[in-house]
Amino acid sequence: MNKKLLAAGLALALGAGYTLGAIAQVKPEILVKQRQSAMTLIGKYWGPLGGMAQGKVPYDANVVARNAGFLDALSKMPWDGFDPSTQGEKTAALPEIWKDGAKFKAAQEFLQGNIVKLVSTARGGDEGAVKAALGDVGKACGGCHNTFREKR
Amino acid sequence: MNKKLLAAGLALALGAGYTLGAIAQVKPEILVKQRQSAMTLIGKYWGPLGGMAQGKVPYDANVVARNAGFLDALSKMPWDGFDPSTQGEKTAALPEIWKDGAKFKAAQEFLQGNIVKLVSTARGGDEGAVKAALGDVGKACGGCHNTFREKR
Repeated sequence: MNKKLLAAGLALALGAGYTLGAIAQVKPEILVKQRQSAMTLIGKYWGPLGGMAQGKVPYDANVVARNAGFLDALSKMPWDGFDPSTQGEKTAALPEIWKDGAKFKAAQEFLQGNIVKLVSTARGGDEGAVKAALGDVGKACGGCHNTFREKR
Repeated sequence: MNKKLLAAGLALALGAGYTLGAIAQVKPEILVKQRQSAMTLIGKYWGPLGGMAQGKVPYDANVVARNAGFLDALSKMPWDGFDPSTQGEKTAALPEIWKDGAKFKAAQEFLQGNIVKLVSTARGGDEGAVKAALGDVGKACGGCHNTFREKR
């Protein structure tokens, strides 16, 4: 049973687009699916925090701390999915991503830096400071989308 | 510009299915998209580790440590998406999920426990112990899928 289940787990992983021995060569449509999945989850955990930043959702320090931790991990996940091989896929990614890779990378790092600040601010527990940190994260999201993502 | 960008970030979050003031009531199709996104990313970061467990991908302690950390966060994300409201959606989720919630929850906790073990084992750095821990995670994935997910 053990080997069978391990094999099942592996088959699952392989089904996700990996070919053993060529892990690095993930199909473009899988890369897109993976990066969009990261964005979907960033939206899931950012949603309530964005509402709190605007005072439209009641402030909840526990939700902020939990979601900030999740966002810290998630904000590292989309970027290797923006591989040049995905340029032919139908997505909202704008050509600016490929034209100015340094600027795109800087926008990623700006988001990650602001999330790291949010995580540490949330530990401190000062609501005003946390809301300011939330605002900075929201600006990092919006700024990158304005430049690198098709308006929808 | 700051307010505009914050609003853009918020609109993005809201676009993901949140309605302010009713954050808890996320649409079933969004819940499904979010839980499937978590599974997609679990597949992304488990893929190479499953290969290492079987000796088909070269062992890389740094990849194990990084991916184990990601999986630690990701393994907490799918479950609130299995809301009864999603039973009408077209997915691979089997009715067993709703018939035996306690067993489904136990399977989630079995996975999370094995990932926590993997994270701490990876810190120790012993390759044999890490591979055994990887095998246990793979079994937890496969065991849950065997019971609660449609074969495809």
